[in-house]
Amino acid sequence: MTDMPVSSFPRTERTTVHRLPKRATYDRAAVEAILDEGLVAHIGFAGTDGTPVVLPTAYARLGDKVIVHGSSVGHFMTTLAEGVPLCLTVTLLDGLVLARSAFHHSMNYRSVTVFGTARVIEGHEAKLEALRGLTERLTPGRWDQLRPVTVKEVAITTVLELPLTEAVAKFRAGPPVDDAEDMGWPVFAGVVPLKLTAGEPVPDPTPAA
Amino acid sequence: MTDMPVSSFPRTERTTVHRLPKRATYDRAAVEAILDEGLVAHIGFAGTDGTPVVLPTAYARLGDKVIVHGSSVGHFMTTLAEGVPLCLTVTLLDGLVLARSAFHHSMNYRSVTVFGTARVIEGHEAKLEALRGLTERLTPGRWDQLRPVTVKEVAITTVLELPLTEAVAKFRAGPPVDDAEDMGWPVFAGVVPLKLTAGEPVPDPTPAA
Repeated sequence: MTDMPVSSFPRTERTTVHRLPKRATYDRAAVEAILDEGLVAHIGFAGTDGTPVVLPTAYARLGDKVIVHGSSVGHFMTTLAEGVPLCLTVTLLDGLVLARSAFHHSMNYRSVTVFGTARVIEGHEAKLEALRGLTERLTPGRWDQLRPVTVKEVAITTVLELPLTEAVAKFRAGPPVDDAEDMGWPVFAGVVPLKLTAGEPVPDPTPAA
Repeated sequence: MTDMPVSSFPRTERTTVHRLPKRATYDRAAVEAILDEGLVAHIGFAGTDGTPVVLPTAYARLGDKVIVHGSSVGHFMTTLAEGVPLCLTVTLLDGLVLARSAFHHSMNYRSVTVFGTARVIEGHEAKLEALRGLTERLTPGRWDQLRPVTVKEVAITTVLELPLTEAVAKFRAGPPVDDAEDMGWPVFAGVVPLKLTAGEPVPDPTPAA
């Protein structure tokens, strides 16, 4: 592991992909690009009874950390704040892969899985900076236009950072890969591209009081 | 729990939502509708070293079960096939909620979380039926057009069913909810709708040999 370039994550036991290892990469730029495109992460951890819990949450990569936040009184943040082992996965679905056989049907996707433990960001200024980064990542350019955040709002928000040290990206791209003898089978084969698309913004209909 | 109507899931310790309980429902129809719209589930379980692992996978709800499948030799299926506790979460992202303050920024979404253990579907016919259901759910109408599945393909595929018995749906919908004193703040407030959208199918460019 000591010989790995700094632009790649070390391969660890839990990030090593055994099935179809060609579809995995430890390249930092590839991992960051996927994290920077996604909007929702799924975080897994052991719940109070020890069984797994997976919850969706907004997130942002800021440098070499992933930031998540939430209510200081919620189970989600209080549990993660204890430094329990967690796994954060972001998945971008790129297409349905329609092959000539059901067996070779697949999905095109890009995903990142990060392992580690989160650390609580302490102090008003540091929390504010992380919340600014999160807001700017999800809705670029808005922070400075918004009603400024209050001391109380920051105080009742838990902001966590997950170091981006143990991570792997996985992906599938391109057309279906059918068996040679199926190539003449009379059915459409190809990819239906899928993309998360933004519609026209809908102004808040609530009257200004 | 015995008095609950059959159209609702029982509230258990791990499905009870404490934060914003109005955004949770145990209604079976609501849970099923979300599962039937999603394409990718995130499954959390304890990996070989005991720490959480979250992996994305295609899935389908068939009746009162959720079906997932994969290579019989992969870690993912062999681990889940052992009947380890798992958590399956499906999240549909519906929009970015732009409030007048960063604090009230949010996301509109619908998610389902299912707890339980998976059971291996045994026998060629039962596996075939589940794979047909999965294929028809993800790509309706194709099964009968495809090159028929072979006995070997079924044999090297593990098909798992997760009973839909302990589940909860969570959601947020509608415009931002700002503080009354912020309603006049001079910034756009509203919702940017988000939707997973299919593009024009791209035919497989591979020559028919």
